[in-house]
Amino acid sequence: MKPFLSRQTMRYSEQHLRQFVEQVLLTVGVSLSDAQSTAYVLIEADVTGRHTHGVSRLPLYVNRLESGLISVNPQLRWSQKMHPTMARLDGGNGLGPAVALQAVKQSMATAKEMGIGAIAVYRSNHCGALSVYCEMGSREGLITMAMTNTPPAMAPWGGQAAYLGTNPIAWGFPRGLQLPPLIIDMATSTVARGNILDAARLGQPIPLGWALDSAGVPTTDANAALGGGTVLPTGGPKGYAMALAVEILTGVLSGAGIGPTVYNPYKDQNHESNVGHFFLTMDPQAFLPGSEFYQRLEVMEEQMRRVPATSGAQVTLPGDRSAKAREEYTQRGIPLDIDLIGQLDQLAQRLGAAPLSSPESL
Amino acid sequence: MKPFLSRQTMRYSEQHLRQFVEQVLLTVGVSLSDAQSTAYVLIEADVTGRHTHGVSRLPLYVNRLESGLISVNPQLRWSQKMHPTMARLDGGNGLGPAVALQAVKQSMATAKEMGIGAIAVYRSNHCGALSVYCEMGSREGLITMAMTNTPPAMAPWGGQAAYLGTNPIAWGFPRGLQLPPLIIDMATSTVARGNILDAARLGQPIPLGWALDSAGVPTTDANAALGGGTVLPTGGPKGYAMALAVEILTGVLSGAGIGPTVYNPYKDQNHESNVGHFFLTMDPQAFLPGSEFYQRLEVMEEQMRRVPATSGAQVTLPGDRSAKAREEYTQRGIPLDIDLIGQLDQLAQRLGAAPLSSPESL
Repeated sequence: MKPFLSRQTMRYSEQHLRQFVEQVLLTVGVSLSDAQSTAYVLIEADVTGRHTHGVSRLPLYVNRLESGLISVNPQLRWSQKMHPTMARLDGGNGLGPAVALQAVKQSMATAKEMGIGAIAVYRSNHCGALSVYCEMGSREGLITMAMTNTPPAMAPWGGQAAYLGTNPIAWGFPRGLQLPPLIIDMATSTVARGNILDAARLGQPIPLGWALDSAGVPTTDANAALGGGTVLPTGGPKGYAMALAVEILTGVLSGAGIGPTVYNPYKDQNHESNVGHFFLTMDPQAFLPGSEFYQRLEVMEEQMRRVPATSGAQVTLPGDRSAKAREEYTQRGIPLDIDLIGQLDQLAQRLGAAPLSSPESL
Repeated sequence: MKPFLSRQTMRYSEQHLRQFVEQVLLTVGVSLSDAQSTAYVLIEADVTGRHTHGVSRLPLYVNRLESGLISVNPQLRWSQKMHPTMARLDGGNGLGPAVALQAVKQSMATAKEMGIGAIAVYRSNHCGALSVYCEMGSREGLITMAMTNTPPAMAPWGGQAAYLGTNPIAWGFPRGLQLPPLIIDMATSTVARGNILDAARLGQPIPLGWALDSAGVPTTDANAALGGGTVLPTGGPKGYAMALAVEILTGVLSGAGIGPTVYNPYKDQNHESNVGHFFLTMDPQAFLPGSEFYQRLEVMEEQMRRVPATSGAQVTLPGDRSAKAREEYTQRGIPLDIDLIGQLDQLAQRLGAAPLSSPESL
């Protein structure tokens, strides 16, 4: 889902982009550890082609850090555990990627020891692409589910004002310890809000069916969709139901914000966002011995890829495009559009950091 | 999703319908316990308005039992547990509702003790409406997720032959021990196959957008959709991705059939169906103390219901329609269409059981 491209892009290596992000975050007082976590998560999104959730979010993060709306030095706190496999994490209003990484790592450690781990997170922030956490868990052999709530974007079914977020859900399934996992990552809206943000940034229209304006009328104007309009759930009431399930697990169950008390980091300047996440990790060997899960998954995939394609198409599995992007971008560099590069350079200049567009200066 | 009604219906009490189902199953040799479980699950679907998954499935179950393709006297076996909260159940090719009820009850008992329970099931059969299992878990205070795979109905994205089932996913969220839970139950296809079966049975067309025929062309002919055609995933690639996640958890992870080795009970006369299920139950008190989860869920629901409705509509939450059906049907009886009643009476007559339409004879 990357329909919006400006005319020009420039390519940078993962390593270069990560260093840029780290350096920028360090200049505003973030700890090295949190800066590294955030750089890792954002650039993992870019290198898998999920540019809406990559370094394009850095200016937002920096603005919130500078205004104190994201904590530069968060105190993460675990609630007292009621059961050995489940826990709740107070993210201390830290950078979302740093908080979420800590949560998923705890969930993974628990699953490795106990077979399953479930972590609910509150007082977090926008955490980038959920696929990154699922890929991390599944690269270590664990089935990984990740969810997050997001600021209001979709109306309840039958309603005309936004309440639920675009509330994405992601799954990672390990293909074996030597192979990249199978990754599913989807907003429960027709498109992720990032796609509409991209269109607005580039001054391009959005397709009909993505969003309604503030009067509940279908619109092709990205700004109308963002300014008081609502995004439509995928598949109508089914996407709505999935978004609700995500809201309950990430918002209600975690103690995070719910609906309008998940504050929009682009608009609200008075509250911490109080985003909630939910992670579930499971060891497939709790069910099937040895590598049987991997073998069975491989058989299924091979069978699916052999299904005759419709004319002009080919059978694809979720994550195929991202895996291809990673292969190309790792070799040739990650393409970023020049408008974004300009924004990032301005940001770096203002902070006295080396600009993205001068690799040699890093 | 109940667009197909024959002109006439008759109403029967839950109790009467359950007794009818039990009696029919007893005549073909099913144990009292399995007959009761199956009657409970089927009639719970009917009393919540999910008629596609109710007593309308009884003739299928009986046919399979009589031909030995569902075991009359299944031996259920638990795999050796690797971890205390997770287990795998061999359903012994028993009646799906009886197998699935045993699995979800085990998952519930585990969650009550350990906070979380995850059960993967293989060698099961069509298990009725997943909502029934979620409602059961959530009425006892547990967040409950249920999934099942189903025979091939949807093509992989880009493909033209069916591989994945309509693979439904359901969630139950407890509102407190005195209140009915919030239930989400959705096929990952545009519609459940049961809706197309209903249309075919009544000789009615289906809307465009539900299905493709065997050549991959959109069709309004229910029989063309059923005979070699494919059902479309909800929301396009997103529904496909969800169906795939369900297939992996219910089929790959459990050891059940996958894709075409989940045999269609309506068509295949040579194999057990080997359906797989997956249940996850969690105690919200593992995350939030006391009744805080219920209170927060109530606040969210109240806020959502206060969102202004679009003109002519009203805000609805998943499960609203089912809750309303239960209220009406419990008082006035469950309406069944007369064609179905005729089928069930024929079935009873053939088996020497009392017909459904003669309440006094039961």
